Amino acid sequence: MELYEHGGDIYGDENILLDFSVSTNPLGMPDLVKQAIISHIPEYACYPDPCCRKLRAALAERNGLEDSMVLCGSGAMELIFALCACFKPRSTVVLAPTFSEYQRAAEVFGGQVKEHRLLETGGFALTDSILADLTPQVDLMFMCNPNNPTGQLADPVLLRKIAEACGENEILLIIDECFLDFTRQGESMLAKIMEYPNLMILQAFTKIYAMAGLRLGTLYCADQERLANIAEFMPPWSVSAVAQAAGIAALQEKGWMENTRRIVDKERGFMEAALGELGLVVYPSDANYLLIKSERPLYRPLKSRGILVRSGVNFSGLGEEYIRIGIQTRDNNRVLLDVMREVLNG
Amino acid sequence: MELYEHGGDIYGDENILLDFSVSTNPLGMPDLVKQAIISHIPEYACYPDPCCRKLRAALAERNGLEDSMVLCGSGAMELIFALCACFKPRSTVVLAPTFSEYQRAAEVFGGQVKEHRLLETGGFALTDSILADLTPQVDLMFMCNPNNPTGQLADPVLLRKIAEACGENEILLIIDECFLDFTRQGESMLAKIMEYPNLMILQAFTKIYAMAGLRLGTLYCADQERLANIAEFMPPWSVSAVAQAAGIAALQEKGWMENTRRIVDKERGFMEAALGELGLVVYPSDANYLLIKSERPLYRPLKSRGILVRSGVNFSGLGEEYIRIGIQTRDNNRVLLDVMREVLNG
Repeated sequence: MELYEHGGDIYGDENILLDFSVSTNPLGMPDLVKQAIISHIPEYACYPDPCCRKLRAALAERNGLEDSMVLCGSGAMELIFALCACFKPRSTVVLAPTFSEYQRAAEVFGGQVKEHRLLETGGFALTDSILADLTPQVDLMFMCNPNNPTGQLADPVLLRKIAEACGENEILLIIDECFLDFTRQGESMLAKIMEYPNLMILQAFTKIYAMAGLRLGTLYCADQERLANIAEFMPPWSVSAVAQAAGIAALQEKGWMENTRRIVDKERGFMEAALGELGLVVYPSDANYLLIKSERPLYRPLKSRGILVRSGVNFSGLGEEYIRIGIQTRDNNRVLLDVMREVLNG
Repeated sequence: MELYEHGGDIYGDENILLDFSVSTNPLGMPDLVKQAIISHIPEYACYPDPCCRKLRAALAERNGLEDSMVLCGSGAMELIFALCACFKPRSTVVLAPTFSEYQRAAEVFGGQVKEHRLLETGGFALTDSILADLTPQVDLMFMCNPNNPTGQLADPVLLRKIAEACGENEILLIIDECFLDFTRQGESMLAKIMEYPNLMILQAFTKIYAMAGLRLGTLYCADQERLANIAEFMPPWSVSAVAQAAGIAALQEKGWMENTRRIVDKERGFMEAALGELGLVVYPSDANYLLIKSERPLYRPLKSRGILVRSGVNFSGLGEEYIRIGIQTRDNNRVLLDVMREVLNG
């Protein structure tokens, strides 16, 4: 309970001034969301809609799906835990490095996890070699697209091959697209969901709408029975009334994705160049964060100067020479660069 | 996902004008909570404190416990599910009638549930006969004090006997006290928690602070390792930043419990007398709800007139002749009585 390894834990240390360890939208939370939080206060005394009917209907309509192909959870994490509780995968494939909670959830519910190593020599790109790991012995595969912490998108042709290999081997494939909306080239596999009943797409309001404190995620699957089975493992009313109101409001924002991509593209480009000039290795990223390699450890020196970044130590396959930084506004980015310069020249 | 049997589901039917199916505080949500929801909006873009440090510290201090004896969840329901996921009880004892989710959670995680029937002839009182059911074969016992839907408090001497029998037989005892603060005579077993390491006390902000839409519950146990084990089965960040801010604010309300008991005592007395005059059987209750028996079914006729009550059909051991109503403000209570009169004389 007291041990915690993810980004965003600004609560355990009062000296953190800037938090680059999380990768939420630099635009912050949409105004419509803030307004909805306030205007719905009279409803918070009541239980939330246990079925999230309005929110699911809005998400289904936006994606041309039936409502029953949409399951909402209290953050994507609740959905990850519930699906592991439900399917109890004996054997799960994850990438390495990637978001560590896939592995933890699979292990909590008794399964073994096999890591598919992404190689630094290949810039941590996902390649066809993953297909050899998708055997009939595997029950589940988690992947994040773009991957976290690299920000790299998987090749769309490879994605289809993976979905097909999972179908042939009866592997449930979970593609976590929680950073996809930040990318310019990324294509959601949600468009292909009717073709692959073994495919589940995980999305979240957390990052793109900067709603991490409200907890709202979504799982999509064409196989409605599968979703209903997962829902059995979720406590009733798990999605708060605040999250439901906020989610519905967020979907009404016009131009949000485009405005987000514009600032992320610009600031990521700025940071890539500036960090490169500092002599750091910056891996190519399509997302709103950058994986950085430095000969000199950066995590602790930055923290002691009030800047929290994500340490590579907590990603299997990386180490303390790596950090991940979120892309923020120009002012914050400049502060990070100044402090990094100080650390590197210190 | 679409089937739902609890109270408060006002979202599935647009014609509900008054919701007596839930039992939240008739005072509504405290002003300090409403203010906290708004003043903390700037923080909701960030991840919540995954360890709920401030909130747990406040709860621990109030109860004279260590912080590590307090675990917060996204509503009491998340804690009920997580502890069943963690301990996977093969055999669980529940009362009947009682809140149905104890049974569902135990069964979802593969266990068998044995019901201890409370008899109508004894006014649904819990008696010493429960002790015979607490055998070494039992892993877990759930009880709600005061019980739901009867509103009856367990005898404190019997409660200690139950805790001792559970200790001797290595049964984990969960006492759900989510309605205890509404009662005048109820004593929390939290005061005895250091004596019984096998005892867990469940409390919630849901009812007493009318925060059902925010999702916040608490589990207390003197055995800190047990709590840490349960926390492993909960997704990280499950308690939203809104819930944490609201919970901390709620604890700062002065006189809230006393004001609540005053209105609940008065309105419950009013309703007991008035419902009795209508020829209905009203069971003695210490809580903010009343279990009622009627020869004539009431649930559907009330619903068709815009009033939702809780049907006895969804409580094992009861049937359609029973309903449970929450205690509300005098104006609402009068409307319910008027409509009931119409139904009974119609």
